[in-house]
Amino acid sequence: MAEICVLRLGHRTLRDQRITTHVFLVARALGATEGVLSGDLDESVVKGIARVSEVWGGPFKVRYEANWRKFVRERKKDGWKVAHLTMYGEDFEPAAKKLGKGNGKCIVIIGAGKVPREAYELADANLSVTTQPHSEVAALALFLDRCFSGKELGKKFSGKLQIVPNACGKVVLHGESD
Amino acid sequence: MAEICVLRLGHRTLRDQRITTHVFLVARALGATEGVLSGDLDESVVKGIARVSEVWGGPFKVRYEANWRKFVRERKKDGWKVAHLTMYGEDFEPAAKKLGKGNGKCIVIIGAGKVPREAYELADANLSVTTQPHSEVAALALFLDRCFSGKELGKKFSGKLQIVPNACGKVVLHGESD
Repeated sequence: MAEICVLRLGHRTLRDQRITTHVFLVARALGATEGVLSGDLDESVVKGIARVSEVWGGPFKVRYEANWRKFVRERKKDGWKVAHLTMYGEDFEPAAKKLGKGNGKCIVIIGAGKVPREAYELADANLSVTTQPHSEVAALALFLDRCFSGKELGKKFSGKLQIVPNACGKVVLHGESD
Repeated sequence: MAEICVLRLGHRTLRDQRITTHVFLVARALGATEGVLSGDLDESVVKGIARVSEVWGGPFKVRYEANWRKFVRERKKDGWKVAHLTMYGEDFEPAAKKLGKGNGKCIVIIGAGKVPREAYELADANLSVTTQPHSEVAALALFLDRCFSGKELGKKFSGKLQIVPNACGKVVLHGESD
């Protein structure tokens, strides 16, 4: 299984809090292994995601990295690939599928504000999910979906809370955490 | 081709502006036909999406409906189906694929705050994209992706601006709008 680290670049506490939180919730729910926050040090995002994993299960965590360039360079030395999701990039589908088949390790960079030129250059691939403006949350979801061939949708989490799918109501089991 | 109307329920101007905008940008980019905003009347969302369609092409528009119940009931009388995306619902994939194959018309309800009980009851299906908490933006993207079998990713828009996919830079063509 591919190992995916989602790096949120240039986070701005006031402006991006909800979108960044959605980025990491999607990362967790759809099979990424870890999240890294850069930009503003926003404890509420880090703690919020930790709380979700505590309640809903799984080991997914977000940590803060002030120096994302150093972080990316060190991971590259350890054999990690880097994909940067940008609306200006090349079609993401072949790259995401190849990554999934190869069981590789990959940092997926998701920019918040204007992304520094260096991110484009450090990336092994700059990848676009359609060439239209939409949402980094959706772009990440589709990237992970193609990488994990849709199997991420059935991923099991043994959390304190578990939802039992229901046609018209809300059924939540309260059990033990993993 | 299935005809999809995305209905954003319970929008709150201050809290939801960016997420609601992402919801509609994803709707437009991934092949939905129209957007309907309910909850707070937030002109900036309606105008923002109109501006995106003006610049990037396509007929996608968002309009405001104060009375969403009446809107949904009237559409149902005209043969529209209603799918409500909720983490408590049943697996979305069979329903989304069936909708796509049948070329049906469907309102997709995306809640902002707490969704009124009536939405669950008016819906022909309450559908969940995984049983984990994540993002309505990602849920909508995956719903549309399964409905349109991935073909939505190649949808053409003849806007004033068009991106030419590029390995490391930003290439934008400035042409005529459709």
